[in-house]
Amino acid sequence: MTVPRYLSGDAAGIREFLDKFDVFLFDCDGVLWSGDHVFPGTVETLELLRSNGKQIVFVTNNSTKSRADYKKKLEALGIPATTEEIFSSSYSASIYISRILDLPPNKRKVFVLGETGIEQELHSENVPFIGGTDPSFRRDINPEDYKRIAAGDESLLDPEVGVVLVGLDFHLNYLKLSLAYHYVRRGAVFLATNIDSTLPNSGTFFPGAGSMSAPLIFMLGKDPVSLGKPNQAMMDAIEGKFHFDRSRACMVGDRANTDIRFGLEGKLGGTLGVLTGVSSKEDFVDGPTRPAVYLDKLSDLLHAAK
Amino acid sequence: MTVPRYLSGDAAGIREFLDKFDVFLFDCDGVLWSGDHVFPGTVETLELLRSNGKQIVFVTNNSTKSRADYKKKLEALGIPATTEEIFSSSYSASIYISRILDLPPNKRKVFVLGETGIEQELHSENVPFIGGTDPSFRRDINPEDYKRIAAGDESLLDPEVGVVLVGLDFHLNYLKLSLAYHYVRRGAVFLATNIDSTLPNSGTFFPGAGSMSAPLIFMLGKDPVSLGKPNQAMMDAIEGKFHFDRSRACMVGDRANTDIRFGLEGKLGGTLGVLTGVSSKEDFVDGPTRPAVYLDKLSDLLHAAK
Repeated sequence: MTVPRYLSGDAAGIREFLDKFDVFLFDCDGVLWSGDHVFPGTVETLELLRSNGKQIVFVTNNSTKSRADYKKKLEALGIPATTEEIFSSSYSASIYISRILDLPPNKRKVFVLGETGIEQELHSENVPFIGGTDPSFRRDINPEDYKRIAAGDESLLDPEVGVVLVGLDFHLNYLKLSLAYHYVRRGAVFLATNIDSTLPNSGTFFPGAGSMSAPLIFMLGKDPVSLGKPNQAMMDAIEGKFHFDRSRACMVGDRANTDIRFGLEGKLGGTLGVLTGVSSKEDFVDGPTRPAVYLDKLSDLLHAAK
Repeated sequence: MTVPRYLSGDAAGIREFLDKFDVFLFDCDGVLWSGDHVFPGTVETLELLRSNGKQIVFVTNNSTKSRADYKKKLEALGIPATTEEIFSSSYSASIYISRILDLPPNKRKVFVLGETGIEQELHSENVPFIGGTDPSFRRDINPEDYKRIAAGDESLLDPEVGVVLVGLDFHLNYLKLSLAYHYVRRGAVFLATNIDSTLPNSGTFFPGAGSMSAPLIFMLGKDPVSLGKPNQAMMDAIEGKFHFDRSRACMVGDRANTDIRFGLEGKLGGTLGVLTGVSSKEDFVDGPTRPAVYLDKLSDLLHAAK
């Protein structure tokens, strides 16, 4: 396995590296910011890339926000962005359902475990759905529900549901898990926006979208198709939208086993690791999944402009 | 591996079999009844055993009911029983916490994911607990909660909690999962009443206690100690209570991979499989986990009295 090239402080190496790519796919948390703290130089680095004609794509596994919401988040952090530059796992899932899954006409409805971001993106692709933030599913299961579910009562188990899509659901409950389980048992396609076990918040971790799928995986004995990093279904969806040359694209991330793996398995021309997030220098240099190049921090790319 | 002996219709074989044991441990659903349907001869068979001086123990992984509640269930089905004959996974967990775990004096509180059965059994062993059916935990997580949890705020993360006990919780939610995760990260012992993935109801399946642990297992990367069948912590707790001679005890069940395994790994003198539940004759005769003897149905034991 090759040793990643360390580019911090190497202006000529950085210029040579940048010239090889037209498109940069960015993981966000740990690369551009951490929590609510934007790293110094993030805005200037993105500006440098844009001024050199590079296409920027923000790739996020966050399924709770729509692209429009995520754009607002970026702007609130002081990072200029367009909705078109944002690619989220809920958008990826919506594209997969509407354009790739070949569902029978009477099985096109999606049962959603998740929040408004998923609903907005399904809506943008004209995919019908139930569940999600509908308050009628935010209740306890009752004795009648067991009988109705067992009997396949169509007022509780919609016969048009052909997909179960599981994202991060802050309102997960026993009733929704029971319905999701029975839909998959009855033949629905089992999808997840992403399978991250945890979600960073306030400097620590909370249950992630993958923890919503975990009970279903255990009950069903099968894994969902995940539409988030590092699953290549997401890369296919990004390519389907941006029509870029993979050999001229570079994935930038802080996590070897998700971001860098995503770029390597997607056969992108390059992978760039930064040391401002989860993975350490040892992970990048000695680990099983290594970026082509790495930097102490993203803004070290600004050396190329000096 | 030996071939199990088939005893249905073999009165002499049954008499010889019964004479070998003083204690019979019974799995319930699939052996004594199925759903709400008590098998013909169940009551008479238990009466035969009792009249021959055998100790009967009903062993259930059901954690939502206390022993007193479970006794009421048995009686509602027409099966006479005493509370002392009942051994549930919530009772097993309570005994494990109170008598086996050696917790520091300032870490003796249990955070419960589960229902009233667990609470009643913890109470019967004088184990302090929080969570469970407390309505103050049945709410959405809010932005302040993330900060308070991250900061270790003692009004939300009780510093005296030294155990997280996960059973079947019909009111599972994101806040409780977050708290359970952080308690274990902060050093609490991770216990489960049982790890059954599903719960039978109305002729089909719903999420079981193991599906409540699944998100935590995924987030923490570690398994809980399970106090239910087939885990031997439950057998140790049963022995601790009844002080029986294992060589003179027999486990009766319908599931090879839980009930029969429980008896075999517990080195009981005997294991009896019945064909009125999950496992088939092929499972018992050719499978990896085989009972010593098997019957078409439990009431075939009545042949011995004829």
